[in-house]
Amino acid sequence: MSDLVLPSDSPARLGFRMPAEFAPHEACWMLWPQRPDNWRLGAKPAQRAFAEVARVIAQSETVIVGASDEQYENARDQLPPHVRVVELSSNDAWMRDVGPTFVTHPDGRLAVIDWDFNAWGGLKGGLYFPWDKDRRIRRKIAGMLGVPCFSAPMVLEGGAIHVDGEGTLITTEECLLNPNRNPSLDREEQEVLLADYLGIDKVIWLPAGCYQDETDGHVDNLCCFVAPGVVALTWCDDVDDPQHAISRRALEVLEAARDARGRRLTVHKLPQPGPLYLAEEDANGVDRLSSSRPRRAGDRLAGSYVNFYIGNRVVAMPLLDPAFDEIARARLQALFPERRVVGVPAREILLGGGNIHCITQQQPRV
Amino acid sequence: MSDLVLPSDSPARLGFRMPAEFAPHEACWMLWPQRPDNWRLGAKPAQRAFAEVARVIAQSETVIVGASDEQYENARDQLPPHVRVVELSSNDAWMRDVGPTFVTHPDGRLAVIDWDFNAWGGLKGGLYFPWDKDRRIRRKIAGMLGVPCFSAPMVLEGGAIHVDGEGTLITTEECLLNPNRNPSLDREEQEVLLADYLGIDKVIWLPAGCYQDETDGHVDNLCCFVAPGVVALTWCDDVDDPQHAISRRALEVLEAARDARGRRLTVHKLPQPGPLYLAEEDANGVDRLSSSRPRRAGDRLAGSYVNFYIGNRVVAMPLLDPAFDEIARARLQALFPERRVVGVPAREILLGGGNIHCITQQQPRV
Repeated sequence: MSDLVLPSDSPARLGFRMPAEFAPHEACWMLWPQRPDNWRLGAKPAQRAFAEVARVIAQSETVIVGASDEQYENARDQLPPHVRVVELSSNDAWMRDVGPTFVTHPDGRLAVIDWDFNAWGGLKGGLYFPWDKDRRIRRKIAGMLGVPCFSAPMVLEGGAIHVDGEGTLITTEECLLNPNRNPSLDREEQEVLLADYLGIDKVIWLPAGCYQDETDGHVDNLCCFVAPGVVALTWCDDVDDPQHAISRRALEVLEAARDARGRRLTVHKLPQPGPLYLAEEDANGVDRLSSSRPRRAGDRLAGSYVNFYIGNRVVAMPLLDPAFDEIARARLQALFPERRVVGVPAREILLGGGNIHCITQQQPRV
Repeated sequence: MSDLVLPSDSPARLGFRMPAEFAPHEACWMLWPQRPDNWRLGAKPAQRAFAEVARVIAQSETVIVGASDEQYENARDQLPPHVRVVELSSNDAWMRDVGPTFVTHPDGRLAVIDWDFNAWGGLKGGLYFPWDKDRRIRRKIAGMLGVPCFSAPMVLEGGAIHVDGEGTLITTEECLLNPNRNPSLDREEQEVLLADYLGIDKVIWLPAGCYQDETDGHVDNLCCFVAPGVVALTWCDDVDDPQHAISRRALEVLEAARDARGRRLTVHKLPQPGPLYLAEEDANGVDRLSSSRPRRAGDRLAGSYVNFYIGNRVVAMPLLDPAFDEIARARLQALFPERRVVGVPAREILLGGGNIHCITQQQPRV
């Protein structure tokens, strides 16, 4: 760790830390998709998919969906009545990445970490311009909840990290060390910041995220904790598929790693769906604007079953490929014996660039 | 009372009723002014006045200010850090009229009454067009709080009513019986609706509101409860001022009335400031649009000291005229011996068409 100077009142020094996703939740936050240059057919198919994700997660925790004023009535109408809808403008709908990273204190306090955000790479490979509304979301949610908000001097998206709640964080070099995020922060400086804002003691660096993942390799599409000391990893047996080498290198790192408590990790493999590709029909459904990433027929989609959400008593997993859906579901069910694993048709979410984990953000129970 | 058919699950029948403003509050809701066709100089002077109102009220209760996404950062910057800011689009900034009428249940539940809203008269004398964002506010706040929202089949603004929390409601015929609000509901039908949604037993009808009040005579600018059985009334001794006859007729009704508990009312008079008029400089500061009420130099302003907010331990009252401010403050202080009466310079709020009571809405403590 470097000697980067940090304020003495950083969240970790005050006693806050980030709980694991499998710890109890108070609520799940989502956003309502609407931009027609990313979601085909005016975002109507994606809205149906998001509504179904909300419905499944709401089976075991409060779901709060942020929608723009223009889409508020439509979101209210399409979502089940017990799902709460609040006004929350955004540039797109990736609550994992633009939403709060919540930290908790042993005395029962909740707080929000407000990372800097540049739309997954800013003007050097970012996904759209501008991203002004996205940058306000974490602070707005803190204001809605009436909890403190700590601004962290670091570009980070929530999907770029996973924690075990016991001091270990997992991420990828491809994303965090990408010069389009924090060119002035080296690996050690980032570790200090992650420690000081999330209360973690150990960072495990996987080399890269999924093949063709437009987020520059978010870990949440490749690998996640399912319990302390246990991870799920997307896997591809086909040695000719670029995903094979990526997953193999990740496995090597994971097998060599010790977590913050000194444990070895148990790795469970989930099959890669597909490979999946953007169809002509999908590409034709989106507005083509110079300010957002083009969606072209034939583009490979970074589909992954690891991109699930761990709810209080339900795991919401993406259904992406009939050839693998049931294998993945059964493996996940074995990993979560106390939760019900529910598949949600999720190709429409994948077409926009992510999946169920990317569109959700848990608010821990305090 | 008529035989108007109402749903059997109306709020009052379920046990909800509207507490008085002087009952304990959980919070105070406000909106952030921004429309340049109503607030001079890009709303900057009004924003400073609203921020001061928020600061004063926040001395004894949580204040939550709704701002549009465009104004969010500016509102956050101008308001004290302990005032919460949430995203909430609106067509203007009159939280009293567009915000929730909160009702409470003895078992501790809170709920929102969502009246219909037509911008103080719709296309027949209303103040602006459109009013689509205003109409969503009550439901949005219910969604933010996670409480039920009852839609009432009646156009009503919160400033058109005052209640004593013991079964009595006070209003004006000029507003509620105006054909631009509820042409299909007569006096008796409105009384049934008010009873069924607010849990009140008795309506006291004053003939008219303040002279030239653009809301069609909202009671909250003329007369309010300061305690059960006790009201404050704006008063003008000048028999040549049209306000004199209005206040005298109101006094006659009040002196003849019995409240829901059978009590006579004690009436305390507050002097009318001014009369006050819109200056050339004020009129020149607003954008002139065909879709909103013009602001013309020489227009009489419906200034009133009755337009104050009763906070938990503070009363925020408008300062409007050095000749009367201190007299009004001293009288109010005598009426609220357990609260501190704090004057806030409020001419900038008055220029927009209302005052401190019009821009606030209490959320009762449950």
